[in-house]
Amino acid sequence: MKGFAMLRIGEVGWIEKERPKCGPADAIVRPLALAPCTSDIHTVWEGGIGERFNMILGHEGCGEVVEVGPLVKDFKPGDKVLVTAITPDWNSLEAQAGYQMHSGGMLAGWKFSNFKDGMFGEYFHVNDADGNLALMPEGMDYGEACMLSDMVPTGFHAAELADVQFGDVVAVFGIGPVGLMAVAAAALKGAGRLIVVDSRPQCYDIAKAYGATDIVDFKAAPTEDQIMELTNNAGVDKVLLAGGDQRLFETAIKILKPGGRIGNVNYLGSGDYIQIPRVEWGAGMGHKNVLGGLMPGGRLRLEKLSRLMQFGKLDVSPMLTHKFTGFEHIEDALYLMKDKPADLIKPVVVL
Amino acid sequence: MKGFAMLRIGEVGWIEKERPKCGPADAIVRPLALAPCTSDIHTVWEGGIGERFNMILGHEGCGEVVEVGPLVKDFKPGDKVLVTAITPDWNSLEAQAGYQMHSGGMLAGWKFSNFKDGMFGEYFHVNDADGNLALMPEGMDYGEACMLSDMVPTGFHAAELADVQFGDVVAVFGIGPVGLMAVAAAALKGAGRLIVVDSRPQCYDIAKAYGATDIVDFKAAPTEDQIMELTNNAGVDKVLLAGGDQRLFETAIKILKPGGRIGNVNYLGSGDYIQIPRVEWGAGMGHKNVLGGLMPGGRLRLEKLSRLMQFGKLDVSPMLTHKFTGFEHIEDALYLMKDKPADLIKPVVVL
Amino acid sequence: MKGFAMLRIGEVGWIEKERPKCGPADAIVRPLALAPCTSDIHTVWEGGIGERFNMILGHEGCGEVVEVGPLVKDFKPGDKVLVTAITPDWNSLEAQAGYQMHSGGMLAGWKFSNFKDGMFGEYFHVNDADGNLALMPEGMDYGEACMLSDMVPTGFHAAELADVQFGDVVAVFGIGPVGLMAVAAAALKGAGRLIVVDSRPQCYDIAKAYGATDIVDFKAAPTEDQIMELTNNAGVDKVLLAGGDQRLFETAIKILKPGGRIGNVNYLGSGDYIQIPRVEWGAGMGHKNVLGGLMPGGRLRLEKLSRLMQFGKLDVSPMLTHKFTGFEHIEDALYLMKDKPADLIKPVVVL
Amino acid sequence: MKGFAMLRIGEVGWIEKERPKCGPADAIVRPLALAPCTSDIHTVWEGGIGERFNMILGHEGCGEVVEVGPLVKDFKPGDKVLVTAITPDWNSLEAQAGYQMHSGGMLAGWKFSNFKDGMFGEYFHVNDADGNLALMPEGMDYGEACMLSDMVPTGFHAAELADVQFGDVVAVFGIGPVGLMAVAAAALKGAGRLIVVDSRPQCYDIAKAYGATDIVDFKAAPTEDQIMELTNNAGVDKVLLAGGDQRLFETAIKILKPGGRIGNVNYLGSGDYIQIPRVEWGAGMGHKNVLGGLMPGGRLRLEKLSRLMQFGKLDVSPMLTHKFTGFEHIEDALYLMKDKPADLIKPVVVL
Repeated sequence: MKGFAMLRIGEVGWIEKERPKCGPADAIVRPLALAPCTSDIHTVWEGGIGERFNMILGHEGCGEVVEVGPLVKDFKPGDKVLVTAITPDWNSLEAQAGYQMHSGGMLAGWKFSNFKDGMFGEYFHVNDADGNLALMPEGMDYGEACMLSDMVPTGFHAAELADVQFGDVVAVFGIGPVGLMAVAAAALKGAGRLIVVDSRPQCYDIAKAYGATDIVDFKAAPTEDQIMELTNNAGVDKVLLAGGDQRLFETAIKILKPGGRIGNVNYLGSGDYIQIPRVEWGAGMGHKNVLGGLMPGGRLRLEKLSRLMQFGKLDVSPMLTHKFTGFEHIEDALYLMKDKPADLIKPVVVL
Repeated sequence: MKGFAMLRIGEVGWIEKERPKCGPADAIVRPLALAPCTSDIHTVWEGGIGERFNMILGHEGCGEVVEVGPLVKDFKPGDKVLVTAITPDWNSLEAQAGYQMHSGGMLAGWKFSNFKDGMFGEYFHVNDADGNLALMPEGMDYGEACMLSDMVPTGFHAAELADVQFGDVVAVFGIGPVGLMAVAAAALKGAGRLIVVDSRPQCYDIAKAYGATDIVDFKAAPTEDQIMELTNNAGVDKVLLAGGDQRLFETAIKILKPGGRIGNVNYLGSGDYIQIPRVEWGAGMGHKNVLGGLMPGGRLRLEKLSRLMQFGKLDVSPMLTHKFTGFEHIEDALYLMKDKPADLIKPVVVL
Repeated sequence: MKGFAMLRIGEVGWIEKERPKCGPADAIVRPLALAPCTSDIHTVWEGGIGERFNMILGHEGCGEVVEVGPLVKDFKPGDKVLVTAITPDWNSLEAQAGYQMHSGGMLAGWKFSNFKDGMFGEYFHVNDADGNLALMPEGMDYGEACMLSDMVPTGFHAAELADVQFGDVVAVFGIGPVGLMAVAAAALKGAGRLIVVDSRPQCYDIAKAYGATDIVDFKAAPTEDQIMELTNNAGVDKVLLAGGDQRLFETAIKILKPGGRIGNVNYLGSGDYIQIPRVEWGAGMGHKNVLGGLMPGGRLRLEKLSRLMQFGKLDVSPMLTHKFTGFEHIEDALYLMKDKPADLIKPVVVL
Repeated sequence: MKGFAMLRIGEVGWIEKERPKCGPADAIVRPLALAPCTSDIHTVWEGGIGERFNMILGHEGCGEVVEVGPLVKDFKPGDKVLVTAITPDWNSLEAQAGYQMHSGGMLAGWKFSNFKDGMFGEYFHVNDADGNLALMPEGMDYGEACMLSDMVPTGFHAAELADVQFGDVVAVFGIGPVGLMAVAAAALKGAGRLIVVDSRPQCYDIAKAYGATDIVDFKAAPTEDQIMELTNNAGVDKVLLAGGDQRLFETAIKILKPGGRIGNVNYLGSGDYIQIPRVEWGAGMGHKNVLGGLMPGGRLRLEKLSRLMQFGKLDVSPMLTHKFTGFEHIEDALYLMKDKPADLIKPVVVL
């Protein structure tokens, strides 16, 4: 079969590979729509996960089941399915402890285009089909379905980590696609005031449509000063980090009230340390809780988040700014993600 | 001063009383708007809290501070304020344990028109002004502000007790004003599917506007059958009880998944027992958690919930179906609440 | 192979059956020690789970692996293992939601001597070996190891459900083996005062050894009166129900402070309803939380609880009042459990 | 009255001051026993909280009430009382949000020898007596009672922040008096294995008596290597930081499993940043939660923790290595704390 792959760090291309084999509890899926992710860019051009050779890329997509193993009970060939970027081993000790995304080791629930071929092939392999697939709701747009693999669950996890409560004042850093979903999630968890921090005016309207109440352009003045002014020096209850780099933790700690929480879902790609400013962290005693985590994956998560779309609580369509038709356009979509034109939020390829 | 009072069980009327005295940490407030509550009806005509003589009624309102005690730091005469129905003693052991509404004893955080005169007077007394008042946001409608005393915090507490999570399937029983706020709260906590159970067609549109996705008319067929059919026999994740009587606990347990939660905020006015059906409760081992509680009150709660209104996340105006102007109309508003015409959701009196 | 079975309701006996087959992720285990449980008595003589024919009994034991399926990674023949009474399907929606004991349906994580043959055979089958077995720590007594199947995890779950906190005043109803483990668990979660309620003087010393600070003999005076007197009418923070019948819920609600929690792990075998007294439950608003649940099973749980024994934090040996040697004595041990002599806490059979 | 004070940074001495005045909700207390704290040393000789002139030191003690304000309901002159180092304003927004120790601002619940005179005077002032005092249990040793002001609640908070669960593998860094109480707390929350890290052999036995199962001497080999070896490279579930400096966060992150938690109660006195190692923190996505906070104070906390001592669950007497009799020996006790002889755990002065 054909697949679009990372050939080595810095190089991508089309390759031929054998169709993946289906284990007893697994499924083989033919993609119906696919989307590249910023992580694919990190993986290929920044060597984010180390060297890989001829590894098919991609961890955002939806598809049709073409084969299932003999232990699979709830799926059969022909089923249209949602697929999650994180496909845990559900019986692992980590999953039993509530941290399924780290099943088998830290971050090891992430398998597509990390430990095995990703979704950008004519077929892809899904471990534990009953645990990691979900039926696509009738009538769901294939492109929108792809947002349930990573963008929605990652953005929503920021609001979960930060434990947003009714009426909280929340700051969201970064309003790319994950940040926008973090905004939507904070609104859907009952944030009262929702301050987004970003410097791209073209994203402001969509951020407001997802629930932002205030915009802070970090190029206009120091973020910290702007947020303290907006809040009459009270600071914010919660900070969601969905963009930028590790220097934002310092800002986050400074604007956070004691008892506040940081929920980070941003991949921190470089630097030796995340630095927590001592004095503003209350010399270790300020109860400014620092949390960061990979999105939870799996079937229940897919079912729950897709329900939000199915029942009109979440509309991801405004994020799909660039649509392609045809498998061969995966390449274009990936380069678009790499080049990040100003009007891009998320490209999607329908097959 | 003049006040509208419960004279004894079954009888109300206007009385003259001395203006309340202000303790060192307290405030005296002149009402700007007032609303009667179903609890006032229970109190007067059903003897819900036992006998009371010449007790001024009312625990929903907003007002203007006219006097503060010498220990009050954050409020001064002239301030327009939100007032909460539940005004805890914040240093009590119960409040220190996180249950401020039970400060001094079960339900004893409820003082207005229970242990002391309520708000339906020319002036009313607020204990611990710094802890129990909040500044009214600029431009807030006085009638809408009254909804922050009880309707909003009580309805929202149902969703908190039930711990609604992203994508949950939630059933809300009862869509009077508290039920509507429970619907709004469940939606604002990220419910995926939101099934309301009620038999009043005139409330269906407003319930949908607050986020309901499905309506179950309990007169059409057994509630349980309808909900199991809607959910393909999976049942619901959470049940919010905001109306009806204690028999609904049996229905709630039957439709609940194992691991589910009931959040009750409905005052259960009669009967000796709430009955939990043994078999459907897993013979005691089904993890169907039964929770019920009085709303949390106090200043922080007022500030947080008013923020939702201030920033456009919650619009209570559709609930205010009947508006009066003039203190003397309190009486009409109360009788309206007693008679419950079909088109009534909530009456309010602006002074 | 030979097994000791429920022949039908009310009748037990030795039968011959084929040795169970090992699925791809499963293990076949030869028992090293076994223990009967009160549940076996309910199952056989009270028809607690309905009719069963020729079903091998038993869900408490430890053993040696004799066969594993090809997908099993962490266990091999010859390994001595702890086995849990509850063996979930870890990829089920319920397990993904955090309720593994209800995987596949309410209580359906309980498979041994319920949906399949139990452990009282020459061999028994364990589904998902990697997820549901744990290596027995070096040197652990086989009889003591059996307590990790059900007695320890069930008793400990009571303290988890009730969320015992440092310094809490806790009441434990029932001090059979599960109740004693509930006492130990409450002590190990930091209970301050630990009042046990039982009428068997022969259990008082062992209850004290596990951490009880006060004994209430319910035959001496009404439990409620005794506990209110002991606590100067303050009542208790938490109630753990590990014995008795559903009438204890009424007592529990009455002695509980607002904001308190009931953690029930007692199988409620008869009656249509559990009755919650309305007034003492605050008319639905007292925040007296009613929780009850089947023990969590699986490998992580086994590893964590066995660590308590391994490192000297928990000593189950005083519970093993009656020890047999030889498979054939399963029958004697079961009848002992049925007859419950006064000096019995728990019988165990080492093979 | 006489008091032992910080005269300025680096200088202490006896001074004369007016007896403090009692506000309407407050109490004046005459000390019965007092203890100096490492914080007093930081305050005086390291300028930890900035410059102070003629401020009476001390925040650990117990005493007898000599005067109460007219609003005080539960205490009267002659009562022997426990006093907490942290005395919140319970109606503050922070306390209402559950962070009483930050009432009025980050760390501002700490008032004794910070914003007002401490306890090392003939009399001291307690704000909100009903909220911040507790009756001393009959027969409690005065010296031991002093441990409830700070050592016990601070050490116990480490275990709360880290959310120790049944069977967890826990590492505790530092076994001075706070560290020992963190060990005791972890044991009382059900830790399975309890590894302490310290280099003072004279503290090993007492650490074991409080529940430590393994000792790591950080001078013998890198801590990280020793702990990974002890745990077969699995790492630990929780880390409690009760000593050392901010460099320990790096070690803590390295030995922590994904999903683990750090609970810091150590005052971090210098350096600009706490550094979280990026890679071992999962590039921001490892769910290694970093928490640190000042102890909760107040009456309920005193009552709950004193109950542990009263009912024999916690024995602080082994920590009281140096006892003095007579107010004038405060000075000696403080210098002892400053000089930290090898056999010192905690000095106490009984008046």
